[in-house]
Amino acid sequence: MTLHSPLDMHLHLRDGDMLQTVAPLSAQHFAGAIIMPNLLPPITTREALLSYKERIQQAIQQSPSTINHQPARFAPYMTLFFQPDYHYAFLESLRDDLTAIKLYPAGITTNSEEGISGFDVETLRPTLSAMSDLGIPLCIHGETNGFVMDREAEFVPIYETLAAAFPDLTIIMEHITTAQSVAALEKHPNLYATITLHHLYITLDDVAGGMLRPHLFCKPIAKRPEDRHALLDVALNAHPKVMFGSDSAPHPRHAKEAPGCAAGVFTAPVALPALAQLFDAHGKRGNLQAFVSDNAQRIYRVTPPDTSIELVNEPFIVPEKYGDVVPMFAGETLEWNIKETL
Amino acid sequence: MTLHSPLDMHLHLRDGDMLQTVAPLSAQHFAGAIIMPNLLPPITTREALLSYKERIQQAIQQSPSTINHQPARFAPYMTLFFQPDYHYAFLESLRDDLTAIKLYPAGITTNSEEGISGFDVETLRPTLSAMSDLGIPLCIHGETNGFVMDREAEFVPIYETLAAAFPDLTIIMEHITTAQSVAALEKHPNLYATITLHHLYITLDDVAGGMLRPHLFCKPIAKRPEDRHALLDVALNAHPKVMFGSDSAPHPRHAKEAPGCAAGVFTAPVALPALAQLFDAHGKRGNLQAFVSDNAQRIYRVTPPDTSIELVNEPFIVPEKYGDVVPMFAGETLEWNIKETL
Repeated sequence: MTLHSPLDMHLHLRDGDMLQTVAPLSAQHFAGAIIMPNLLPPITTREALLSYKERIQQAIQQSPSTINHQPARFAPYMTLFFQPDYHYAFLESLRDDLTAIKLYPAGITTNSEEGISGFDVETLRPTLSAMSDLGIPLCIHGETNGFVMDREAEFVPIYETLAAAFPDLTIIMEHITTAQSVAALEKHPNLYATITLHHLYITLDDVAGGMLRPHLFCKPIAKRPEDRHALLDVALNAHPKVMFGSDSAPHPRHAKEAPGCAAGVFTAPVALPALAQLFDAHGKRGNLQAFVSDNAQRIYRVTPPDTSIELVNEPFIVPEKYGDVVPMFAGETLEWNIKETL
Repeated sequence: MTLHSPLDMHLHLRDGDMLQTVAPLSAQHFAGAIIMPNLLPPITTREALLSYKERIQQAIQQSPSTINHQPARFAPYMTLFFQPDYHYAFLESLRDDLTAIKLYPAGITTNSEEGISGFDVETLRPTLSAMSDLGIPLCIHGETNGFVMDREAEFVPIYETLAAAFPDLTIIMEHITTAQSVAALEKHPNLYATITLHHLYITLDDVAGGMLRPHLFCKPIAKRPEDRHALLDVALNAHPKVMFGSDSAPHPRHAKEAPGCAAGVFTAPVALPALAQLFDAHGKRGNLQAFVSDNAQRIYRVTPPDTSIELVNEPFIVPEKYGDVVPMFAGETLEWNIKETL
């Protein structure tokens, strides 16, 4: 199975030592990724954005591919942390280095304290109008602060309000987990979605149905079986409005195996083999290319580096750790492995 | 606030070192408790039951009360692990030492592997008929093996089938967590319920809505806000068919803060102060005596040791650990404390 220019449209690379650990792992497999801006402090200025992009590129160059020993060709698609009053001129001046803007409700997940507390359209209009005019997509972590199983479904009306108020703005519902979000895709032409690996594989049962499994704890939390089925339906059939976005979110092991376990599943280095296994098991191998690259190129209007990666139907024993980060499927055997990148 | 002969109608004391740690903590506050039989192997014989009772009594005698330095007066109400073919004569011969029989669906929680796989009335009839005739209550952990948020609600029809088939059998729905179970109380005169401390305090939001909190992970898992409200309504109003049962379930700290975190919340040493705080906050102090003792005495027809315990409206800083076990509210301050036992 050969994939051309696979893309991860929702990725956390962090900074410092963690960046050094995880950036090369994504770059070895993917041709590009949307890089989340929720550092501390969040990325809100030209300087912060360009400096972070530079650190990412350095981390990748300093750690050549273990597969072909070449520096990876990898496009870090940079994002700003949403603020309601970005000026048109500021965004326009960044156009070559800015792919999208990510909106977080305040306090909803890791490093989101400076996010948005209300969704009044007029308050948000300055930035959203400029984005609409400039063709910059808006990525949203769509959860309210309600009961954990209801947060995403409660946010769907906000998605719909924004989609209707800014019909020319491309809005990405990030890491959707519910049947309600899938249904919203059909209602507004400018609503799109990313779907993670882990939400295609697990439900709340896998997190808390047997033993509690902190390495599968994430936000939004995995939902009900019927929600997972709705996600599988659009992903496996490469619905033209959905894209793969791993939301791969590394935390050091001690932050996951603790009384206050941080949210996030680390999937970047296992994502393509696990996706190959999933699509193959459902007889949908032919749809993986669209899910993992073609749809994203069309929706975001990006042309990633021309890479290809070959997956082979051979056992892949997932490492227990990458650096100090425990990946999804740690110690388990996947049925597909990466052969080489060209 | 003085409580007379408070009872914990659902308690895990484990065995060995853990028994030595936790049995005195329950005996210091409670006049008696229903002792769960899910040891390894489970308690299914006269010898195992009497030997376990003896070990419990020794653990309590060897650790006199820290409050008045007297050996605690504490009734360990012993239970057998349900099997479908207990003979009438066997149960009758144990009548003085057996208070109830606990039924576990197979594999549903800690050490329940030898539980029941089907709920065919005729298969269960030998034991249930004998229990009905002998007036031995049946305690049930009522969960199916379905989706984690649905398991208890899916089990309610089984409760109802058994209640209708054995109208003279007292059936206790253990540690109920849902509005559906509360509703079932009204439908059958022989259905009763225990309610834990933690299910009166928390919902799934507290377990997995912010950071993941393994020390609040339990089975049945904490449910939705409307479920908690239904539990509070019957507990705070001392509904005559509900009793306090802590389901206090100690695990060593390393078993809770691990990738495969064990289910159970350790509440025995904090239960009475936390209940006092809860009932007081809702203006229901006068109902706590019934919830924590009188209802249980009537439903089980037991007469516990005549003890009294005085709670005072003074700060109680909950220890971080008891032995190697982390309690609920570890490090937090409760508003009520134990003054003395008489």
